[in-house]
Amino acid sequence: MNNFRFYLPTELLFGKDTHKNVGAEVVKHTSKKILFVRLAKASLERIGIYGDITASLAEHGVEYIELDGIVPNPLLSKVREGVEICKREGIEFILAVGGGSVVDTAKAIAVASRIDGDYWDIVTGKTKMNGGLGLGTIITIPATGTEMNASTVITRDEDLVKRGFMTICPTFSIMNPELTKTLPKDRVAQGVLDMFMHTAERYFTPTQAVDLTDRMQEGVMKTIIRLGSKFYHKGYDYDTVAEVTYASTVAHNFTLCVGRQGDWATHNIGHELSGEYDLPHAESLTVIFPSWIRYTRGVNPARTAQFFVNVFGVENNFFDVDDTIDRGLEAMENWFKSLNMPIRISETYIKDVDIEKLANKASEGGNRKLGNFKQLSHDDFVAIYKLAL
Amino acid sequence: MNNFRFYLPTELLFGKDTHKNVGAEVVKHTSKKILFVRLAKASLERIGIYGDITASLAEHGVEYIELDGIVPNPLLSKVREGVEICKREGIEFILAVGGGSVVDTAKAIAVASRIDGDYWDIVTGKTKMNGGLGLGTIITIPATGTEMNASTVITRDEDLVKRGFMTICPTFSIMNPELTKTLPKDRVAQGVLDMFMHTAERYFTPTQAVDLTDRMQEGVMKTIIRLGSKFYHKGYDYDTVAEVTYASTVAHNFTLCVGRQGDWATHNIGHELSGEYDLPHAESLTVIFPSWIRYTRGVNPARTAQFFVNVFGVENNFFDVDDTIDRGLEAMENWFKSLNMPIRISETYIKDVDIEKLANKASEGGNRKLGNFKQLSHDDFVAIYKLAL
Repeated sequence: MNNFRFYLPTELLFGKDTHKNVGAEVVKHTSKKILFVRLAKASLERIGIYGDITASLAEHGVEYIELDGIVPNPLLSKVREGVEICKREGIEFILAVGGGSVVDTAKAIAVASRIDGDYWDIVTGKTKMNGGLGLGTIITIPATGTEMNASTVITRDEDLVKRGFMTICPTFSIMNPELTKTLPKDRVAQGVLDMFMHTAERYFTPTQAVDLTDRMQEGVMKTIIRLGSKFYHKGYDYDTVAEVTYASTVAHNFTLCVGRQGDWATHNIGHELSGEYDLPHAESLTVIFPSWIRYTRGVNPARTAQFFVNVFGVENNFFDVDDTIDRGLEAMENWFKSLNMPIRISETYIKDVDIEKLANKASEGGNRKLGNFKQLSHDDFVAIYKLAL
Repeated sequence: MNNFRFYLPTELLFGKDTHKNVGAEVVKHTSKKILFVRLAKASLERIGIYGDITASLAEHGVEYIELDGIVPNPLLSKVREGVEICKREGIEFILAVGGGSVVDTAKAIAVASRIDGDYWDIVTGKTKMNGGLGLGTIITIPATGTEMNASTVITRDEDLVKRGFMTICPTFSIMNPELTKTLPKDRVAQGVLDMFMHTAERYFTPTQAVDLTDRMQEGVMKTIIRLGSKFYHKGYDYDTVAEVTYASTVAHNFTLCVGRQGDWATHNIGHELSGEYDLPHAESLTVIFPSWIRYTRGVNPARTAQFFVNVFGVENNFFDVDDTIDRGLEAMENWFKSLNMPIRISETYIKDVDIEKLANKASEGGNRKLGNFKQLSHDDFVAIYKLAL
């Protein structure tokens, strides 16, 4: 196990009706006007919480400026718009209501409001972060885990370069599983795959002696597979969705991965598909991950086999690890398909994929390497994209 | 799953050499003289860290007043001694170096220094807590998990009443698994049992729909059984002890038990054996827990069987749950015995046990009930003590 420093100061409020008291939480942290970054008003009304939230803010005398129009794979231009408001109005606290795109936009605004330069200067290392504004969130889809970590993914408009960066943890986050009642089926599947892959990326580690976090991660993935599938196929019931919702948080709040490196090549190789072709994040993961496993299966076959046996319940072939991995890949791909997700690029709406362009972007012209389980570079990216065709 | 609020603001610094920079951590939180609550100097010198710590404090200009003489099952009188120093000297920050007894004493001092009354007034509810002084810890034995939670157990000198109370989380905690190199074998076993039972008490819950935390807890307990046993039988190696050390923290930092009630009857029934006869905490658990399971096995046999199958690897008898539980009890008692722990009171040094007195203390004269998996009262305590004879 590696040395580590773990600090997770987000206060998590979880359960039925918890969003109805958001105003009381906000006034613990600011007495000024706030920025209310959110999904479209119509979306929040469909979920049934716009009135609850604004009523609670009004009850506690919280004034706000609203910002919406955030797209999936959220854009730098929207971050800049929010920063301009925060600086102009002297805002100290942001309330973000929505999914990962909304919260990540709010995180980027929170840190960029504290520097002179642009948010992208932080991502590129040109400008150092200087803390951030306070941030409360209400999550409307369990998926990204952004409510309880510092991870922030923003896409630059001009060249569609999508980059993750560690900014700040929210001050508080509110998760009410009931808010998922109106979630369309495809968004359920995307969320389930997202949280699964946050754990799976961490499972494929080069670090030795990490049995404890292996076992905890296996428990989380097994539960996501079982209850995520139930949520998808049988629809909303509170008990099931509550477990899936908390799973999305622990899958990505670093509790289960301290002292070990994750891999993250699949995320980054997939990001280029999302950035270039606007492919939903989850689909970028389900098309890349099986190919990534095929490409790296020789690196540590014991770990790959352990993943399929302990997470997917594949029977171990003690005499032929390749057979175990083959059957594991089949089981995982079948699970992806059962959620109506593509497992090859040809099954998405992308028809002409420019592999060389994607590999060039992922490698930043050949210089950037990705992955820790196995370090990969440009030619490896090409091979993985080809396996995924 | 129940609604919950989760807030764990302790910063955890984990790994080799981490204690050597404690002074730099302390000066982030105070510029005044601190209270340095610790194991006996000779003990810290045997572990090899007294010089490292005082050198680091000196390097960062931290002055301190030392307080030691803390006994296992730590006493209220020592808390009062510390509070008197903190109030007199205007101390704002405490550094605690030792195991659970030292840290719990420091926690009690930290909160009692902020009120007019006595620490016991907080425990009894007579006086409300008013926050606490800052608190840094360096843990010398992985066991109690006190480094990353608010749990505090203190014994009142005059009548040896031992009571747990939720005070404050440490500001930071430093865990260096290397510090366990000189730990005597019996202390290793005690620590392993302590962390195991912190998880097991949470596993026996009346709350429904807690599969996710069940799976994570099972992973933690399986790892504690395997690697805790390895630490005990084969002695120190860094990789093994690092995992056991982090297990002690997650076993009791509430990450794995959000949204579910734990039971805690075993701890509280056992506390009376420790309070009355000064029995080591871990031994109080290994003699009570098997009897508690025998007494409650009819409450939710599916959960009890799941515990033994998923944690102890007992083969499930799908047709006879009682058979599964019988073999599970045998496996668990064998594991306790393999760590040289007693599984009956008659195997401890207690020769004449006054069951009526213990049951009266545990029930506070008949009024106090314990346990959530099954709520127990005076006569139940008597029955469980008898089963444990």
